[in-house]
Amino acid sequence: MKTQVAIIGGGPAGLLLSQLLDLHGIDSVVLERRSRDYVLGRIRAGVLEQGTVDLLRAAEAGSRMDREGQIHDGVEISWHDERLHVPIKDLTGRGVMVYGQTEVTHDLYDARDARGGAVLHEAEVTAIEGLEDDRVTIRFTHEGEENVLEADFVAGCDGFHGPSRKAIPESHRREFERAYPFGWLGLLSKTPPAAPELIYAAHDRGFALCSMRSDTLSRYYVQVALTEKLEDWPEERFWDELRTRIPADVAEGLVTGPAIEMSIAPLRSFVSEPMRYGRLFLAGDSAHIVPPTGAKGLNLAASDVYYLHRAFDQFYNHRNSTGIDTYSDQALSRVWKCERFSWWMTSMLHDFPQTGAFERRMQRAEFEYLQLSETARKSFAENYVGLPY
Amino acid sequence: MKTQVAIIGGGPAGLLLSQLLDLHGIDSVVLERRSRDYVLGRIRAGVLEQGTVDLLRAAEAGSRMDREGQIHDGVEISWHDERLHVPIKDLTGRGVMVYGQTEVTHDLYDARDARGGAVLHEAEVTAIEGLEDDRVTIRFTHEGEENVLEADFVAGCDGFHGPSRKAIPESHRREFERAYPFGWLGLLSKTPPAAPELIYAAHDRGFALCSMRSDTLSRYYVQVALTEKLEDWPEERFWDELRTRIPADVAEGLVTGPAIEMSIAPLRSFVSEPMRYGRLFLAGDSAHIVPPTGAKGLNLAASDVYYLHRAFDQFYNHRNSTGIDTYSDQALSRVWKCERFSWWMTSMLHDFPQTGAFERRMQRAEFEYLQLSETARKSFAENYVGLPY
Repeated sequence: MKTQVAIIGGGPAGLLLSQLLDLHGIDSVVLERRSRDYVLGRIRAGVLEQGTVDLLRAAEAGSRMDREGQIHDGVEISWHDERLHVPIKDLTGRGVMVYGQTEVTHDLYDARDARGGAVLHEAEVTAIEGLEDDRVTIRFTHEGEENVLEADFVAGCDGFHGPSRKAIPESHRREFERAYPFGWLGLLSKTPPAAPELIYAAHDRGFALCSMRSDTLSRYYVQVALTEKLEDWPEERFWDELRTRIPADVAEGLVTGPAIEMSIAPLRSFVSEPMRYGRLFLAGDSAHIVPPTGAKGLNLAASDVYYLHRAFDQFYNHRNSTGIDTYSDQALSRVWKCERFSWWMTSMLHDFPQTGAFERRMQRAEFEYLQLSETARKSFAENYVGLPY
Repeated sequence: MKTQVAIIGGGPAGLLLSQLLDLHGIDSVVLERRSRDYVLGRIRAGVLEQGTVDLLRAAEAGSRMDREGQIHDGVEISWHDERLHVPIKDLTGRGVMVYGQTEVTHDLYDARDARGGAVLHEAEVTAIEGLEDDRVTIRFTHEGEENVLEADFVAGCDGFHGPSRKAIPESHRREFERAYPFGWLGLLSKTPPAAPELIYAAHDRGFALCSMRSDTLSRYYVQVALTEKLEDWPEERFWDELRTRIPADVAEGLVTGPAIEMSIAPLRSFVSEPMRYGRLFLAGDSAHIVPPTGAKGLNLAASDVYYLHRAFDQFYNHRNSTGIDTYSDQALSRVWKCERFSWWMTSMLHDFPQTGAFERRMQRAEFEYLQLSETARKSFAENYVGLPY
């Protein structure tokens, strides 16, 4: 099998890249290790930056999002019962789109299907060869057979645990990591959201987040120690803990209901440099992870894909390799700024068990500075809605 | 001896308070443990916020500052050879005044002298009694004799090591502290400044600062480990290290000359709450210390004095105790925000020996975000020129 761009990973990054390349007349094949149902069953973030929204529209995968997604012009940060509304649209001219990553993936599959896109599921990559040569050879197993895909380039969209990043020799990459001493316990329920906007809640007992996917589907999180086990969190305990941490008036109106899904996810900051090695280009979680505070994960994958599809378009359609040569630096420049924001927002709002009294007051001072200064709120907002590409 | 407000400490905070109270018809006596020459010999910061400038003018101690001080409309932050100019005046409508703390103290002494203000030097306080009673009794030694000063109130302007804060029972105060794993080695020389504006320089070898007191008096600093000893830093070594850390083009034009003073100071963040206990009111370093990055120490003392003199004016001249009752909360609200800024700026620009690779990239990302975003620069600038009183 031959193609121009082999894409490893059929999550939103790989699918979006495949679709955008197709629309630019560039051939690609997506190799996804899991089944389609598995990919669509993953619960992930649900806040899209304007840049991501624009890219989904450009990919002809935005019509259901535009019908069903909710545009939010503001967001709330709370500290016990103190609520700070940040009017992100007024401050930056842009809002965000609340629309689940699961739905985005669904729409991208539909868009690939409509154009007859090649997406192989349960295709497990076993070797990536020739990254420094003229052509790349990807060996993979599919339906019990060994297969070979030859390509000009590989896009590694296969997430943190995928084989792409590891195909870069260790001597040629540098990894930066920070683990946080806590995780997020999430609960998805078919209930109306606690408030019209997302509420990022700081509390002495730990962080909580009131988020949503739609008017009838809510997503809540509470910070928990990494030692916590899901079986120790019956739903009632989750709701009680959530109510304790969010402002009392929000807690009072909280509608609870059976959990559709509950899970605990650790928080991690991670970047691998560079994002290109020879004919391999990393995009999304394969190159970087952000803690979920601020919802930058999917959006950062989208900005990588933006730079990368443009680079391939320049290369194939305009015989210009500038985009390819600058991809890593360009993507990383934005990545580090988003890492900074996600780290800052996580640091401000979570309870850090090892943190001293002075540092706790610094967290509070960040909140009070946001309360005081419109400039501080604007800085928060411009990051929240997405820094420019 | 009797007075209305006993002021412990004859540094800039105590002198400024004494002068402002005098101008409002309120009697005070300043007790200073050291000699006048000693107080005037201390080398301290040299950047005044507009609020401090306005207060010195209101205290009729601003005329030499207005003649000899330099108004700076911008400041530079550098990262190796990358220079970022922040036009603080354009961004905030305000600049800062470069005028040494030594000169401020000198002018305040002159102002007190001109009004016949009572400032007792080498007056060592031995006891502060009656803070919870109707009147305060301060016992002190002066010229070999034991003396007593009775007052309605005490203002503790006696710095971090003074007796005022310690007069608050431990059960009634809470202290917040952060020590930094480095100090600043400073050198004062009769040379023209390296650049027209201050340069805060980040470098892999550690932070450096190019500051000045006037067109002919320069003040430079380099971050050093706390284990460093002054005798290991001959002047040539200092200049060499400074040149390494600042942008090459600035280093090239650096004019060196004999040191008038060299010293190593540790960096510390410290806050003691509350700032009032009964008839005692803390102001300046007695209640809080900031690391010198951003030059907030003297300015924070000035804002304390602003709130405090207004509170006493309300009390004595308008029979209103609101200012006295809210002093601690009001002062602390601003204190914590300035602590945040000083801590943030210190964290961004210094080399932290224990810090991992990810955190170093976060420091760099702060700088790149400042480069990218005018909003980020405006947020920096509004803190640098001074948050509103």
